[in-house]
Amino acid sequence: MKVINEEIIKKTEGKCDIINLTDELEKFIGKNKAMNGLVTVFSVGSTGGISTVEYEPGLLKDIPKFFEKIIPSSVRYNHDDTWGDGNGHSHIRSFIVKTSLSIPVIKGELTLGTWQQVVFVDFDNRKRTRRIILQYIGE
Amino acid sequence: MKVINEEIIKKTEGKCDIINLTDELEKFIGKNKAMNGLVTVFSVGSTGGISTVEYEPGLLKDIPKFFEKIIPSSVRYNHDDTWGDGNGHSHIRSFIVKTSLSIPVIKGELTLGTWQQVVFVDFDNRKRTRRIILQYIGE
Amino acid sequence: MKVINEEIIKKTEGKCDIINLTDELEKFIGKNKAMNGLVTVFSVGSTGGISTVEYEPGLLKDIPKFFEKIIPSSVRYNHDDTWGDGNGHSHIRSFIVKTSLSIPVIKGELTLGTWQQVVFVDFDNRKRTRRIILQYIGE
Repeated sequence: MKVINEEIIKKTEGKCDIINLTDELEKFIGKNKAMNGLVTVFSVGSTGGISTVEYEPGLLKDIPKFFEKIIPSSVRYNHDDTWGDGNGHSHIRSFIVKTSLSIPVIKGELTLGTWQQVVFVDFDNRKRTRRIILQYIGE
Repeated sequence: MKVINEEIIKKTEGKCDIINLTDELEKFIGKNKAMNGLVTVFSVGSTGGISTVEYEPGLLKDIPKFFEKIIPSSVRYNHDDTWGDGNGHSHIRSFIVKTSLSIPVIKGELTLGTWQQVVFVDFDNRKRTRRIILQYIGE
Repeated sequence: MKVINEEIIKKTEGKCDIINLTDELEKFIGKNKAMNGLVTVFSVGSTGGISTVEYEPGLLKDIPKFFEKIIPSSVRYNHDDTWGDGNGHSHIRSFIVKTSLSIPVIKGELTLGTWQQVVFVDFDNRKRTRRIILQYIGE
């Protein structure tokens, strides 16, 4: 059994920018000969999210539109009274999607579906440079 | 320390069909003498979800009704322009609920509450046959 | 590799009470000399949730307000026909937020952001005493 960590850095546009992490995750698995275990993807900070999605242009529009509907960026939140940075909606979105996802690795491969990609979503209201942690535990 | 994997196959009705996985998860723990560790349940594909719920008839109606309200199946999504399969809502629901859940196992038992069951939800808009991965890491 | 478990007990006010678990999680990591691995936080029961948030007064108001908007406590749910305990909304909220979160530990520290705290949210409609499981797997 081994524990392997890697940190990746992503520049994002914020505003529900959806970044595909699948290639980097597969490289991480491959180069570390991770054969049988669990990989966790964790985004550092309280205005991002990690999930899976079919990474195609339609959903890249639908998901921001959905968040704009249920947690609008145009509304004033109590959070904005604390800091005045206008990103209350970003925090609530991150709270819901959460910043962690764990995926089994079997026979050296992520157990994702064909159309299932691992993504980081930046809910913040401005450009950000983000740290994302990849951690593998297994054989 | 050991890593144990099992794949289970579930036929579903789609349309927010909620399938109770708890019995199979307990059998998986029991037959592998998993005493102290972490079990991860992962649904393969981008239109399903894994969570916990009190598995009773009322909530089996309430949860689909909730999703119909916040992510309606009757609306046209940009995803549908890409593929024309009419399941844009299924993808957004899966993105929110996510396809992975990890549960501690202590003294050979899942740390679930009495009324807390592990479920797979099929958000797709048609019948599906699904692969669900169970993975245990621990002693 | 080792597996370490601890159970913490929290008295809550229910009604979207948000409890900061970060200090206890850091103590758990520290006293067990957890240097390199994965910590999972799991809330026992089907009306709670675990996530991360910037723990400041504004968001402690915004998050309950958000849930009251999308999953109102004032509406009658089918769940309430089953038990009559009036907490259908609590179960749906818990189903969405989910009761588990896993966080990498590297060089003896949680990989949280500066403003990112780990929280338990009690969605039930009354005061509760709650069991929360902390589990570490790693070196």
